[in-house]
Amino acid sequence: MLIVKKFGGTSVADKERIFNVANRCIEDYKKGHDVVVVLSAMGKQTDVLLDMANDINPNAPKRELDMLLTTGEQTSVALMAMAMHALGVPSISLNAFQVAMHTTSVAGNAKLIKIDKDRIRHELEQRKIVIVTGFQGICKYDDYTTLGRGGSDTTAVALAATLHADACEIYTDVDGVYTADPRIVEDAKKLDQITYDEMLELASFGAGVLHNRSVEMAKKYGVQLVVRSSLNTTEGTIVKEEVKMEKMLISGVASDKNVARIAVVGLEDQPGVAFKLFRHLANHNVNVDMILQSIGRDNTKDISFTVTEDMADVAVETVERHRSGSLKCQDVKVNKNVSKVSIVGAGMQTNPGVAAQMFEALYDANVNIQQISTSEIRVTVLIDEEDTNKAMNAVHKEFDF
Amino acid sequence: MLIVKKFGGTSVADKERIFNVANRCIEDYKKGHDVVVVLSAMGKQTDVLLDMANDINPNAPKRELDMLLTTGEQTSVALMAMAMHALGVPSISLNAFQVAMHTTSVAGNAKLIKIDKDRIRHELEQRKIVIVTGFQGICKYDDYTTLGRGGSDTTAVALAATLHADACEIYTDVDGVYTADPRIVEDAKKLDQITYDEMLELASFGAGVLHNRSVEMAKKYGVQLVVRSSLNTTEGTIVKEEVKMEKMLISGVASDKNVARIAVVGLEDQPGVAFKLFRHLANHNVNVDMILQSIGRDNTKDISFTVTEDMADVAVETVERHRSGSLKCQDVKVNKNVSKVSIVGAGMQTNPGVAAQMFEALYDANVNIQQISTSEIRVTVLIDEEDTNKAMNAVHKEFDF
Repeated sequence: MLIVKKFGGTSVADKERIFNVANRCIEDYKKGHDVVVVLSAMGKQTDVLLDMANDINPNAPKRELDMLLTTGEQTSVALMAMAMHALGVPSISLNAFQVAMHTTSVAGNAKLIKIDKDRIRHELEQRKIVIVTGFQGICKYDDYTTLGRGGSDTTAVALAATLHADACEIYTDVDGVYTADPRIVEDAKKLDQITYDEMLELASFGAGVLHNRSVEMAKKYGVQLVVRSSLNTTEGTIVKEEVKMEKMLISGVASDKNVARIAVVGLEDQPGVAFKLFRHLANHNVNVDMILQSIGRDNTKDISFTVTEDMADVAVETVERHRSGSLKCQDVKVNKNVSKVSIVGAGMQTNPGVAAQMFEALYDANVNIQQISTSEIRVTVLIDEEDTNKAMNAVHKEFDF
Repeated sequence: MLIVKKFGGTSVADKERIFNVANRCIEDYKKGHDVVVVLSAMGKQTDVLLDMANDINPNAPKRELDMLLTTGEQTSVALMAMAMHALGVPSISLNAFQVAMHTTSVAGNAKLIKIDKDRIRHELEQRKIVIVTGFQGICKYDDYTTLGRGGSDTTAVALAATLHADACEIYTDVDGVYTADPRIVEDAKKLDQITYDEMLELASFGAGVLHNRSVEMAKKYGVQLVVRSSLNTTEGTIVKEEVKMEKMLISGVASDKNVARIAVVGLEDQPGVAFKLFRHLANHNVNVDMILQSIGRDNTKDISFTVTEDMADVAVETVERHRSGSLKCQDVKVNKNVSKVSIVGAGMQTNPGVAAQMFEALYDANVNIQQISTSEIRVTVLIDEEDTNKAMNAVHKEFDF
């Protein structure tokens, strides 16, 4: 069996944890498996490096930032190889260039194009544990690149796909994927299984155990993932295409407080005005989420939408800038004291009553719903931020996990 | 003009010094020159990394040590590029793989085989300052290697040779090469020029501003070096093939306290006994220096030699182990309280009186000479360690620098 195991920065933050990870990998190795390990930079090392860069040049070229950041994973893989050697097991560390891990040429946010198999295969054939730097790649100019947020997960999934691994295990500091954030909902339960699509919806709503890009890639290449803790041996959560029939109606409740609601009131009701509004926002890299359009009075309409909190000011400025031109309106309002609460579950595709059940639970808990958006496997409501925890608990209780 | 400038770890130890180096490079760049900068790891970073490795595995594989250590220079070149960008000058950092810097496959002590010119040439043509990692290379298996002690100097000289640079400047924390260690000899003077061979002899005797390998390479490829301070703009010392005619008789006085004298007394005088002694020592990696063989009594002879202090015990144990076999002798003595004092100068090749003049100066200063060794351009005496400074000053005064 070929197993790809990915460990995040906290799992290799110090000597003790490095040996802990080494031992877990050696366990599989000694059962006769081929083991490929993907590591992030140790602890907060990436932040330390970013601080160093920022101190020297707050506008450092991204290409040089990647040159700096890639030293982080190179350090952790080298130390891990030393730890395994200390435990008497042959191993070798490889960085993005040695693998080689080809990406696009976008420093700071590159996409993986192709991973060479030869070197890894060769080392596995020598019965070595192969330790690979996560998060990093090289572009066609031989420059280092990094894969952006959650990059090491993506590296692990891509390696598992390329090597046709039998398992891809993502180790984190939680036991797996929960039905809700256990810090908010006391009764939250760990899920044994979840589908790629559910995981994607959950990840988008702040329950970010796995980053979307890695899940999307896993779905695309059919790589079955296991999310589990590096600190204990509890069975984790399996992420795969389909889960067992007797599955619960919904898989989880998620919340996201990093959201602001922008209301553009009294827009002149001309053809294409909505298109113009969102075109202007897109031009300023403002990602728009839940959109609500309502007819106003006197041939006007109101459009409200949500953005992440840090983009709220940019969104408002963008609208204001065009108020005298293509976006004539009466008012632009922003409300940062809102949050999103979502239920996610493949089961709701065939159960039309799920949304109503959620709304009823919120009504009973006296939570006012400002806006609603849905996908095939998700229902999201926008509510007052201060109602978040109350809403989470009410909804979680309603669906009886 | 194409200038290669090499800065050691202390010259890039912190933000202020990094900007200092950046400014010095930019000065040349703004005169229209092509500038290639070679950097070591920041400050004591290499030692920090070695400590980390040692903590995890005191017998870490050298291959993994090199994987770890090469992050040091990659960090300093990336930060330097950021600093130059902050100062508005285009620059790019390149590591051993990006250059590419091909070496033998000996981890920890690799030799440079060939440096590719294409990438550096390309970046220089874009009018960028090119910042290259010193000390490191890649072997034919795509593994990182390091060049051993003084490796960054070697990188700089090799780059200068490969690129046919017009100048190769080695920046250190001293003003240049001195006639003697200024901490010992108050009147020590900075040399304007020195030959490769003199530099080699001085480097062997503790006046190690430049490492031998870099000087040997400079001599082989005719790369003229300048050794100068990164902290001021004083003209440094030029190292080249021949120096001006009116040159001083000798260039410098050097001392080395890291030496022990081993005396093997009353060796059975059989054919090949000296050969056997040094064969055994070589088998235990003991490097032997000044050798003195004298006829003893009763068909025996005495052989004494010097080694570095840390090898003294190994040397004595080696001899003891064979005393009952091939190395029958009466006694083995070790004396660690000795030191070497040398005069070095190309001029002495044509001035046979130089050695005598040195001995006379030592006699006048009441310094007892235990052993003597000479090369074409060097005379070395072994003396009591406590006489070192007295001897240095007496000899330095005698030759009237």
